[in-house]
Amino acid sequence: MADITVLADGSVTSPQGFIAGATYAGIRAYAPGKVDLGMLFSEQATTSAGTYSKNKILSPSVTVTKESVASGKSRGVIVNSGCANCAVGEQGYIDAQEMASLAAGVLGANPQELAVSSTGIIGVELPMGLIRNTVGNIETTHGGGHDFARSILTTDTVSKEIAVSFPAGGATVTLGGCAKGSGMIHPNMATMLAYLTTDAQIDTAFLQESLSEAVDTSFNMIDIDGDTSTNDTVLLLANGASGVTIAKGTPEGESFAAALLEACIHLAREMVKDGEGATKLIEVTVEGAENLDDARLAARSVASSILVKTAIHGNDPNWGRIMMALGKSGAEMVEKNIALYINDICIMEGGLPIPVFRESLIASMQGTEVRILAHLHLGSSTAVAWGCNMSEEFVTFNSAYTT
Amino acid sequence: MADITVLADGSVTSPQGFIAGATYAGIRAYAPGKVDLGMLFSEQATTSAGTYSKNKILSPSVTVTKESVASGKSRGVIVNSGCANCAVGEQGYIDAQEMASLAAGVLGANPQELAVSSTGIIGVELPMGLIRNTVGNIETTHGGGHDFARSILTTDTVSKEIAVSFPAGGATVTLGGCAKGSGMIHPNMATMLAYLTTDAQIDTAFLQESLSEAVDTSFNMIDIDGDTSTNDTVLLLANGASGVTIAKGTPEGESFAAALLEACIHLAREMVKDGEGATKLIEVTVEGAENLDDARLAARSVASSILVKTAIHGNDPNWGRIMMALGKSGAEMVEKNIALYINDICIMEGGLPIPVFRESLIASMQGTEVRILAHLHLGSSTAVAWGCNMSEEFVTFNSAYTT
Repeated sequence: MADITVLADGSVTSPQGFIAGATYAGIRAYAPGKVDLGMLFSEQATTSAGTYSKNKILSPSVTVTKESVASGKSRGVIVNSGCANCAVGEQGYIDAQEMASLAAGVLGANPQELAVSSTGIIGVELPMGLIRNTVGNIETTHGGGHDFARSILTTDTVSKEIAVSFPAGGATVTLGGCAKGSGMIHPNMATMLAYLTTDAQIDTAFLQESLSEAVDTSFNMIDIDGDTSTNDTVLLLANGASGVTIAKGTPEGESFAAALLEACIHLAREMVKDGEGATKLIEVTVEGAENLDDARLAARSVASSILVKTAIHGNDPNWGRIMMALGKSGAEMVEKNIALYINDICIMEGGLPIPVFRESLIASMQGTEVRILAHLHLGSSTAVAWGCNMSEEFVTFNSAYTT
Repeated sequence: MADITVLADGSVTSPQGFIAGATYAGIRAYAPGKVDLGMLFSEQATTSAGTYSKNKILSPSVTVTKESVASGKSRGVIVNSGCANCAVGEQGYIDAQEMASLAAGVLGANPQELAVSSTGIIGVELPMGLIRNTVGNIETTHGGGHDFARSILTTDTVSKEIAVSFPAGGATVTLGGCAKGSGMIHPNMATMLAYLTTDAQIDTAFLQESLSEAVDTSFNMIDIDGDTSTNDTVLLLANGASGVTIAKGTPEGESFAAALLEACIHLAREMVKDGEGATKLIEVTVEGAENLDDARLAARSVASSILVKTAIHGNDPNWGRIMMALGKSGAEMVEKNIALYINDICIMEGGLPIPVFRESLIASMQGTEVRILAHLHLGSSTAVAWGCNMSEEFVTFNSAYTT
């Protein structure tokens, strides 16, 4: 497997042949420099893959994206923040289709080539007049990735972006990505918006398989508040502009999967670190599970537990709550086998609590990352999940989101 | 079905033949009048039924209770608050057995007749010396129900008690109950401690069936923080002291089931109202679901959603979050069928949002109860779930539970 390099200042337009841009349409409250309408497009035809929210109340923007990807013609996306275009009846689908048409008009493309994403308040219609008036202001350029990344932010405080490259076929393949999401985030599917681009040429089946696997190990293993959005989408576009073709079952295929996973994990961790009101990343590793599903269940249960999140917020080594969250996960476990560590300090071994020096444990929890390791000593499967502390600010913030 | 009367000042000793009492053992920090060790016992032999935590990390106190109920000899319980007797290895089982023996000694009973419950911090051993020294101080009397109810409280701010009576077989049958629980509460089983007593004579099979059904509609439909304790137990004892025998499939049997359900729902609602940091009860009704499981899934999903709980904390009518929580529940639903109401104000009809007068909606949310009704218009099943608002105080409180 080839070496993967993280590029400085990477974005979705780091791979060759991708253009992007954004403008302020007025959907969100104005602030200097704010953008809320963006486009990403490939100059070449692409293959595409996607994963979507499994919420039964689904935004029609997601429906239009699914149709674009399923048609095999998808090569870009138009996004808006501020309004989720969800739970508004049939008008939502009409508006999402019009957004694709408006973007296609500006880009000289076919509407079917455009995916659509919306994120923000549920239950209000898209202000289409504003979008019609301003979509023509978007300048799509090879350097526009950062603007695009900013156009999808809602309660996020920072952009989440990355680009990586690896040698393949005597050339260099680049993969870029950006994501948003700091609320309504729970690991039950692709729970946020993320866009990934690559200049390799990759067939649709391998592209979808690689994306689904990477999403299961990254975006589906994070939790901020246990809730699952109606609009979540991960979209991956491959345009072949590097001249490199990558196939399944080759060393290049493995490099691509590894690069994709690295980018997805980076973006997923950035999302959790930027969780509403969060100041600490919680990384939960479960080893020795009977199988991968159990390892994931157990790790996600700990990373999602409100009582674990609040304890870690207070630097409180209340590890009984970690045991509670492991036990409620549904994963197979035998209490007398379990070993538990917080920040490399052993708390429990063989199911028995160790007389821990509590001061050093509390001291270790002051940082911005808290690592929890549970070894179930039942099998050989491992999984990692990420959560964040829950703070008073989280509650204050979410008590007045629409008012 | 007979009329059910709620008794003034009811407790677990309201039914004939039950005695109870409590003392301060020193397991919890001292305060005037505080008690942390209690006993409840029937002067007659009883039939018994129980439901228990499904957490795989289970307190050995629960194990001893299961064994007592399974033996058919259970006729009382010894309880302690402050320490959960959980995740402490084999010593936990030894200690729980000794608690049963100590109680049996004081009561002149067989250890097998005693169930054991512990609630409090996980991961520390029971201070058995304190329990041995003080168990003899417990005076069990026919008026001791209130003291017993106080002995199980941890972060609860008030006792939860009830007694109801109904005529049967020419006499009066009484049913009493008490419960504790204001944290680690999520509807996935009997998630707290509750004790129910009745002076009817009822066979074990009907007793267990009635209890399981009542628990599914009451304690299993509440949520405070999404977490599931390791120690939860609901215990129902029937001693026949009223001289009335109640059998399945009779009008008296229906009266008993109705009285039991009323008591369980009362205690469940009291628990949620006393949720850590909570000031509002949220009642979520789902009507028109395809089946009962779906109705319960959907109602519980809304009552458990952190983003719904925080919005209601701020009197924020952010109803899109209710739609999100319905949609993520896994219950069958068709968006265009859904009608949604908050405090009788229609928000959505036929899947379309109604231009609501927002001021009146906000005004209606200022009270201590917020009612949400979702009609799925798919089938004829209904369920009700209860949650509470999530406040900044909840986070503050849970950030420093052991420190």
